[in-house]
Amino acid sequence: MNFTADQISHLVNGTVVGDGSVTVNTFAKIEEGHAGALSFLANPKYTHCIYSTKSSIVLVRRDFEPEYPVSATLIKVDDPYQTLTGLLTMVNDMMSPKPVGIEQPSYIAPGVELPEDVYVGAFAYIAAGAVIGRGAKIYPHTYVGADAVIGEDTVIYPGAKIYHRCRIGARCILHAGVVIGADGFGFAPDANGVYTKIPQMGIVEIADDVEIGANTTVDRATMGSTRIGQGTKLDNLIMVAHNVEIGEHNVFASQTGIAGSTKIGSHCQIGGQSGFAGHIHVGDHVMVGAQSGIPGNLPDDSKVMGYPCVPVKEFYRNSAYVRRLGELFAKINKLEGGIAAGCSGNEK
Amino acid sequence: MNFTADQISHLVNGTVVGDGSVTVNTFAKIEEGHAGALSFLANPKYTHCIYSTKSSIVLVRRDFEPEYPVSATLIKVDDPYQTLTGLLTMVNDMMSPKPVGIEQPSYIAPGVELPEDVYVGAFAYIAAGAVIGRGAKIYPHTYVGADAVIGEDTVIYPGAKIYHRCRIGARCILHAGVVIGADGFGFAPDANGVYTKIPQMGIVEIADDVEIGANTTVDRATMGSTRIGQGTKLDNLIMVAHNVEIGEHNVFASQTGIAGSTKIGSHCQIGGQSGFAGHIHVGDHVMVGAQSGIPGNLPDDSKVMGYPCVPVKEFYRNSAYVRRLGELFAKINKLEGGIAAGCSGNEK
Amino acid sequence: MNFTADQISHLVNGTVVGDGSVTVNTFAKIEEGHAGALSFLANPKYTHCIYSTKSSIVLVRRDFEPEYPVSATLIKVDDPYQTLTGLLTMVNDMMSPKPVGIEQPSYIAPGVELPEDVYVGAFAYIAAGAVIGRGAKIYPHTYVGADAVIGEDTVIYPGAKIYHRCRIGARCILHAGVVIGADGFGFAPDANGVYTKIPQMGIVEIADDVEIGANTTVDRATMGSTRIGQGTKLDNLIMVAHNVEIGEHNVFASQTGIAGSTKIGSHCQIGGQSGFAGHIHVGDHVMVGAQSGIPGNLPDDSKVMGYPCVPVKEFYRNSAYVRRLGELFAKINKLEGGIAAGCSGNEK
Repeated sequence: MNFTADQISHLVNGTVVGDGSVTVNTFAKIEEGHAGALSFLANPKYTHCIYSTKSSIVLVRRDFEPEYPVSATLIKVDDPYQTLTGLLTMVNDMMSPKPVGIEQPSYIAPGVELPEDVYVGAFAYIAAGAVIGRGAKIYPHTYVGADAVIGEDTVIYPGAKIYHRCRIGARCILHAGVVIGADGFGFAPDANGVYTKIPQMGIVEIADDVEIGANTTVDRATMGSTRIGQGTKLDNLIMVAHNVEIGEHNVFASQTGIAGSTKIGSHCQIGGQSGFAGHIHVGDHVMVGAQSGIPGNLPDDSKVMGYPCVPVKEFYRNSAYVRRLGELFAKINKLEGGIAAGCSGNEK
Repeated sequence: MNFTADQISHLVNGTVVGDGSVTVNTFAKIEEGHAGALSFLANPKYTHCIYSTKSSIVLVRRDFEPEYPVSATLIKVDDPYQTLTGLLTMVNDMMSPKPVGIEQPSYIAPGVELPEDVYVGAFAYIAAGAVIGRGAKIYPHTYVGADAVIGEDTVIYPGAKIYHRCRIGARCILHAGVVIGADGFGFAPDANGVYTKIPQMGIVEIADDVEIGANTTVDRATMGSTRIGQGTKLDNLIMVAHNVEIGEHNVFASQTGIAGSTKIGSHCQIGGQSGFAGHIHVGDHVMVGAQSGIPGNLPDDSKVMGYPCVPVKEFYRNSAYVRRLGELFAKINKLEGGIAAGCSGNEK
Repeated sequence: MNFTADQISHLVNGTVVGDGSVTVNTFAKIEEGHAGALSFLANPKYTHCIYSTKSSIVLVRRDFEPEYPVSATLIKVDDPYQTLTGLLTMVNDMMSPKPVGIEQPSYIAPGVELPEDVYVGAFAYIAAGAVIGRGAKIYPHTYVGADAVIGEDTVIYPGAKIYHRCRIGARCILHAGVVIGADGFGFAPDANGVYTKIPQMGIVEIADDVEIGANTTVDRATMGSTRIGQGTKLDNLIMVAHNVEIGEHNVFASQTGIAGSTKIGSHCQIGGQSGFAGHIHVGDHVMVGAQSGIPGNLPDDSKVMGYPCVPVKEFYRNSAYVRRLGELFAKINKLEGGIAAGCSGNEK
């Protein structure tokens, strides 16, 4: 299917600059553009690419004014990234496979009722008492434990494992290798330092519209629930420990770890490889830089970075100071000499 | 089933303070208490909750004396957490499903003999020569490679993968997504920097009573064995490289990494996201703070933190000093001015 | 099979020192040597082991001269590690199982053609349109999505998941739990901070001779491809985000994370648990120490370490300075006293 710049502009409420009759049939990154492709420019880092891109159409901000000649047709919009997202979603929905039905061999325990419009891939395992919502897609090799609940239109990609009694909301996406509801890490040492397992009798509750990246693990609570709130997105290889409670509409980048019983608010943005201590409270709208260590509570609107974390500006300032420590030690040595000289001078 | 405070107190050798006839039928965290629930108070952080909890019974230390009125019945015991653990284990054992038998379809290679009381879930794969101990539970999607050995009463949760010839002890628990015995990371570069794979011909040996968290990986040795000692507990998403040897009764928090050939003693407590260099020796009873980097050997009883790690007290002191570097630089500048003034003063 | 020292020496172009008729039939680490075993000595850390090893034969460098008596027969070679690798590969090839054929039950979508010499394990899933190269080994529980391509002689260990349309080259090795092509982490927030998913329409392209460790994840691109170049080796539990491009013949140690759209050159050596910011460029022959944070571009031949990273030498120097900050603060206090005394002296 080909679309003209004029057609797309009309669809996204944009303004065409250049030839409105040029057509595209695919998307491309601006730096990998080619004839027939639509690209977008949102990150200023890539502005220089617009002068050399071979894409036929580029979405740009309304206030973008090229400094050099541009061969592509531009479509000016309020937010090129969001506009692109809309177009991509539309095309993706048209193009994506919509698997439906029960492939064989799969294992569906006696008594489990499957809505008519679900997909259950081959080698999927659905244990007794599990409840699968309408429109859910359970890909191959998925394990849904006893009495687990999968919400409507939730997609579970190949090989995700959901332990017994855990509850996944509606419209969630769980990627391959995700493990929901494995035992929390709880052991009581005896006098000889030999550990006894604390039974982990709680569950995991995941609200609606949550996406969880590949191989991320969310442990079940000792008692009660480990919770992930509506609309929160977890990247790959993240660890959420037992009894953690995460609020709504957060984004957590990959390889972050959150220790037991910590509570995190809503609308936070957490950088990759960060670590949160256990039993702490983190407020709303908190931003944490990558690889940070969070040893204690953080109030709303905190912006921190570092190990242990400090306000972001302080982190960069302190890092710069550390790089100047050699200079500092040299100055001190010089001052010590100066003082010594000064003092002997005084004593003359 | 309902139990009275008197009955429970009798069972756990406690002392009832309050109404001994009150009954419970479930557990709850003290801050999420409700009528009919038993809670415990061990962490002083939660002491304030005892005055507002709606739980019917709370386990407390023998020396606990409330400062305000408490509506719950208290049962005083030596160690509330350990007592709770005992009660939970008892109840958990009563409540847990005890799957037994061979579900179909599963793949059991010709010649493999299964004891009568094992569980093998659907889609489990047991290769030729594998030995499965009595009472073992092999959940769905598990892979047990050729000639691998699984000890008695060991539980392998869905989707764990055990490569050929690896040996898992008795009463171990391997959670979903665990990978035991993948190739160690060994490559020899040639003169052009092109890597040749070093065959990884060894195995992994896991002793008895080991628990391994979801998606943790333990690589097979180049030669000999990668070893994890009795009673050691590994949390989720941990990396144990080839030829590592870990002793007994350690706890490793999640996302920790241990590079090749490192030896770690017994009774250590390792914080999350820590990293150990390769070819080092770590003693017994070592405590490592979260996110630490361990570049070299650590003697017995070390308590370290930081990147690179230093003694814990020094870590906190140095972190505080770093936060005061701005102040320090300012002082130096002032001193340099002072010296200059002092010197000119001398010269008057 | 037994081989004499003379036979092996002849095979590897070595020089025998000691009894050339002694025989071996296995390999062992030098510190775990026993009669009948061949060991090697390459890392000087282990030199002392040669005087006590019970191995029958040890490969050593041509310039190695023992300082004490050695009971083993030595074979002197140019590069003991590389020689060992050659011997191991030879023996490993002789010993390894060579599974071939299609085990049942497996799921092979209608229309997929399998070359005669492939292995497809039980419970493997091969979706419509997938192309499997000659000699490929697809172990049990593997998922190969729609239209994915697996190159010749590539080995995919149990439970690896390859999403639709991703392309894996020839002679690659993907270990258990690897996830290739899960959605990149892309979300656009609206004015209320609610995230909309950006469709991830691109793919992952993995070139020839790449090895990827257990539970590592490589996300598909938003548009275009996430790329891993020829001969690059990734260890376990690594995260490669969407649109990352990694060049050729790199080694990345475990638990490293690379954020979106970052480009890394060739022949780099990356330490474990390192993190790369998004949208940066890293040159060729770069060495990054363990647990480093790379916030920006790095030119060719950089050698860095730290969080944020600095040149390696500077990292160690700065770390040493930080450990002396207490001393520095004490000196400053003393100097301030000295200045005060000096000044008052002047005023006399």
